[in-house]
Amino acid sequence: MSRRAAAELLCGVNLRALLDSVDAFLFDCDGVIWKGDKLIDGVPQTLDLLRSKGKKLVFVTNNSTKSRTQYAHKFTSLGLSVTQDEIFSSSFAAAMYLKVNHFPPQNKVYVIGGEGILEELQLAGFTALGGPEDAEKRVHLKSNYFFKHDKNVGAVVVGLDPHINYYKLQYGTLCIRENPGCLFIATNRDSVGHMTDLQEWPGAGCMVGAICGSTGREPIVVGKPSTFMMDFLLQKFDINTSRMCMVGDRLDTDILFGQNAGCKTLLVLSGVTTQSTLDDSSNSTQPDYYTSKVSDILTLLGE
Amino acid sequence: MSRRAAAELLCGVNLRALLDSVDAFLFDCDGVIWKGDKLIDGVPQTLDLLRSKGKKLVFVTNNSTKSRTQYAHKFTSLGLSVTQDEIFSSSFAAAMYLKVNHFPPQNKVYVIGGEGILEELQLAGFTALGGPEDAEKRVHLKSNYFFKHDKNVGAVVVGLDPHINYYKLQYGTLCIRENPGCLFIATNRDSVGHMTDLQEWPGAGCMVGAICGSTGREPIVVGKPSTFMMDFLLQKFDINTSRMCMVGDRLDTDILFGQNAGCKTLLVLSGVTTQSTLDDSSNSTQPDYYTSKVSDILTLLGE
Repeated sequence: MSRRAAAELLCGVNLRALLDSVDAFLFDCDGVIWKGDKLIDGVPQTLDLLRSKGKKLVFVTNNSTKSRTQYAHKFTSLGLSVTQDEIFSSSFAAAMYLKVNHFPPQNKVYVIGGEGILEELQLAGFTALGGPEDAEKRVHLKSNYFFKHDKNVGAVVVGLDPHINYYKLQYGTLCIRENPGCLFIATNRDSVGHMTDLQEWPGAGCMVGAICGSTGREPIVVGKPSTFMMDFLLQKFDINTSRMCMVGDRLDTDILFGQNAGCKTLLVLSGVTTQSTLDDSSNSTQPDYYTSKVSDILTLLGE
Repeated sequence: MSRRAAAELLCGVNLRALLDSVDAFLFDCDGVIWKGDKLIDGVPQTLDLLRSKGKKLVFVTNNSTKSRTQYAHKFTSLGLSVTQDEIFSSSFAAAMYLKVNHFPPQNKVYVIGGEGILEELQLAGFTALGGPEDAEKRVHLKSNYFFKHDKNVGAVVVGLDPHINYYKLQYGTLCIRENPGCLFIATNRDSVGHMTDLQEWPGAGCMVGAICGSTGREPIVVGKPSTFMMDFLLQKFDINTSRMCMVGDRLDTDILFGQNAGCKTLLVLSGVTTQSTLDDSSNSTQPDYYTSKVSDILTLLGE
C-alpha cells in the first residue's frame, strides 16, 4: 500500500474546503467529545455550529460499557442534545452483528463486558448471560470441583470489562472451546481507554487478548476499525461516504475506520494520540487533517 | 523446516532402546505427574524404577504459582521423594532471568501471578510487588481519580493468576507503558492448565495475552518452550542434551522445548493432548514417542 501524504494541520482555508465537501461529521467520543466524565472545552458550541451549517452529526464509539440509551443520557447530562438515533456504539454493533447473521434466538450469549452490551443484546431479542452479575463470582480451585457452563451459549461477546475476573475468563473460554460453533465477538480491540480523565487504562484489547491467549482463536471485531458499523450508518443516512468526515483521537481505530470506509478524516490530539506519535516514522496511518481539539473549528472560523 | 516422522507408540522394544540411550528424564508435572492435586496412577513406582536404573530425574514445570520449595512440599505431600534441586519451575526461571541479565537490585519487580513468583524473586534478592496482596484491590473509575504506580518498577513478571483483576492489569500495563526500559517477562504462555483434575482452565497465556493486548508489546518468555531453563539444567547436570528425554503432555511447550534443546521426547496422553490432536494434519509437532501415561513404562518392562 502506498504511503499517504502527511496529515495537514487544520487551518482556516482547508477547514472551509472541508466543510464545503462534507455533509456529515462522524465523531468518536472518548478523547474527542469527553475524557471520562469531563466534557472537552468548546464541544457544545462546536456541535451547535456544525448543526447550524446543516451538517449531520453521528457519534461512533468503540466504548461498549454503555448502551445507546445510556449514551444518550450521558450526552444530556453533559449538556449536549444528542438523540439515541445519532449514536452508534460497539455494544449496539455486537447485537446487530448477531441479528444480521441470523443468530438463533434460542441460543444464548455470554458477555464479558458492561451492562451496555447486555442491554443492546436484550433489545435485539437475545438472551444474554454474564456481564455485571458475574463481577463478584469466584472459582473454587480444589479437587473434584467442576465448573459448569451453559451448553446453549452460541456466542461470547467481549468488551472492556473493569470487573474482569477468573470466573468470567473460565466461562467465556469454556464456551468457545467446548460449545460447537460458538462465535467469539470483540466489540473492539482498543489497547487503552480514558476510563478516567487523568490517565489511560487497559481497553477492550486487554480482555480480548486474554481470551485469544487462552483459546488460540481470533475474534470477529464489530467496532472500529471494522467497517461493520458503517453499513448501518449508510442504511440510515443517505450520504455517500466520500461526503463524510470521521473525527477521532486514535489512528488505529478512528482514522483507519474512516479511511477503510472512504471518508475524509480529521485527527484531534485531545485524546490518546500525540503529535510525536503522528509524526513518528513508524506510523503509517496519516489522516487528511489534524488539529488539537474539535473546538479549533470554532476558532479557525472566527466564530 | 522439514516435517518430523510421525511419533512412534511406545512399546517394549523402543522403550528398552530409549532407556539405553538416555541418562536423564525431564518430566513436566501437570498432566504427567499429577492433575490438580491428584497423583496420576503408577507415578511413584515408575519414578522409583527409573531411579533404580540410575537415571537422573528432573521436574520442569511451567506452572509458576509455586516456588521450588513449595513444589518440593507438594511432591512430598503426594508421597514422592523429590528434592528442591531436582525442580525447575518457571517462577524460578523468571528470577534467574533477571539475575543473569544483571537486573539492578534497586529496581523493583511487579508481579501478576502467584506467591511462587514472589518467593523466587525474593530468594534471588529482588524486591517484588503485587501478586496475592493485590488480589482484592479495586480501582475507582471516577473523575480526578489518579492511579499511582511505582516508577522504580523495572520489570513486570506475568504468570498464571486466578486472582487477575483490573487493578493488576492497570498496574502492570502502566509500568510497561510509562517506566522507561521496563521489561515484560512471561513465565510461560500455556493456553490452559489443569487447575483442577476435572477440567482445563485459562493458563498464563491468558494473562500474558491481556498485557500484550493492552501494551502492544511481546513478552520475554522464560518457561517452556523457551530453552532458557535448559541452560541451567546443563550447568547443573553434566549430561549432553542428546542423552536426555523430555516427558510431557503438551506439544507446544514440552515437546517443542525438548526438541529445541536437542533432547529425545516422549508425549503422554494423560494431560491436555489427545490422540486425535497428535494425529491431526494441522499438528506439525511430532514427539519421538508417545504413550498413554508414564506408568506404561512399568507395564511395558513387565515390572
